[in-house]
Amino acid sequence: MRIALLGGTGDIGEGLALRLTRDTDHEVVIGSRDPEKARDRAAAYEDELGRRELDATINGFANPMAADRADVAVACVPAYHLADTVEAVADSLDDTVLVSPAVGMQRDEDGMHYNPPGVGSVTALAADAAPDGVPVVGAFHGLAAGRLADLDADLDWDVPAVGDDDDAKATVTDLVDAIDGLRGLDAGSLAAAPEVESLTPLLINLAANNGDLADLGVRFH
Amino acid sequence: MRIALLGGTGDIGEGLALRLTRDTDHEVVIGSRDPEKARDRAAAYEDELGRRELDATINGFANPMAADRADVAVACVPAYHLADTVEAVADSLDDTVLVSPAVGMQRDEDGMHYNPPGVGSVTALAADAAPDGVPVVGAFHGLAAGRLADLDADLDWDVPAVGDDDDAKATVTDLVDAIDGLRGLDAGSLAAAPEVESLTPLLINLAANNGDLADLGVRFH
Repeated sequence: MRIALLGGTGDIGEGLALRLTRDTDHEVVIGSRDPEKARDRAAAYEDELGRRELDATINGFANPMAADRADVAVACVPAYHLADTVEAVADSLDDTVLVSPAVGMQRDEDGMHYNPPGVGSVTALAADAAPDGVPVVGAFHGLAAGRLADLDADLDWDVPAVGDDDDAKATVTDLVDAIDGLRGLDAGSLAAAPEVESLTPLLINLAANNGDLADLGVRFH
Repeated sequence: MRIALLGGTGDIGEGLALRLTRDTDHEVVIGSRDPEKARDRAAAYEDELGRRELDATINGFANPMAADRADVAVACVPAYHLADTVEAVADSLDDTVLVSPAVGMQRDEDGMHYNPPGVGSVTALAADAAPDGVPVVGAFHGLAAGRLADLDADLDWDVPAVGDDDDAKATVTDLVDAIDGLRGLDAGSLAAAPEVESLTPLLINLAANNGDLADLGVRFH
């Protein structure tokens, strides 16, 4: 498959690009609003893989070109950029599964709190922004970015996925399963996205309040 | 310590009573609105422990008497009974840490959803119902009751605790740690309760949508 990481120049994009390239045969493409930045970061990811003697090609493009012919497009952008990012690539999403990993959160003196948009969840926001017929799956929330991007770090995490299109969701959970140390789980329909997105502030609060915990993920068993 | 399980005649109460008695030296007392029911269940828990050659005394009382002189009182009741239960024992809560494990949820055709009360969380509801000066800790949410009550089942679960009184919270996480296979974690202040309570519907949705998962708990790492 061709996997486009829209806004894939940040830390979640880096981790997904490195691990998808190392652990799977999928083609990974980095998108950015700025195509030069996309090319620079793609080259940096190639270098990082090269230092590990993994010979890989990762291309960088402007987001719409990255999304073009992608089987899966992951919107690796903050929640407040999500609608803009999806709208910018709308014409390129053809037989593409759109994946939303963003979470709406608000920090105050009591810690981090889940702060969903008015439509109920950030995944629902992505679904509203996507063209009709483009299946949207919420997944890859709350992955500790530093650990994800560190190929020396073993992961042992579950990735719950939500969405109304079962085939699209299975595509995403299969993609998750293909990354060493990750397990994709079906967490239900789009309407169950708030429970999944709420995990991220919980992980942040747990890491902030327990000195021995950092770069947290979750396992269900 | 003396641990009162208010409304401890149900499945969460059974699991906590059996495991606290087996794994710790704390005195466990079962409370119910109906003292006869409390005595019957306490005797049944003693029998279950006796079958495992654990000689233990568990007493049952009406909730106010169970709460009397308790160091920790766990309100093992559904969210809609919580305020009534706390108010019924208010005069008995003296130097007692009140623990709230209840979660507000609503099921529809899309699965289970977190449905907090107007005050923001069920833990906040317990805090509002408790007399001034009684510290309230939210903990023991989302423990799969059947597995908890099955002493043959090993647990390997984390129990996040929230509350504004750090000493009370430490008392509760220490109590959690004393149960084999459970680890107590500090998930922040009372205002961070929604993120913890939201875990329960997520666990239910994951078990409903993944055939190989049941009686789920969570580990953070």
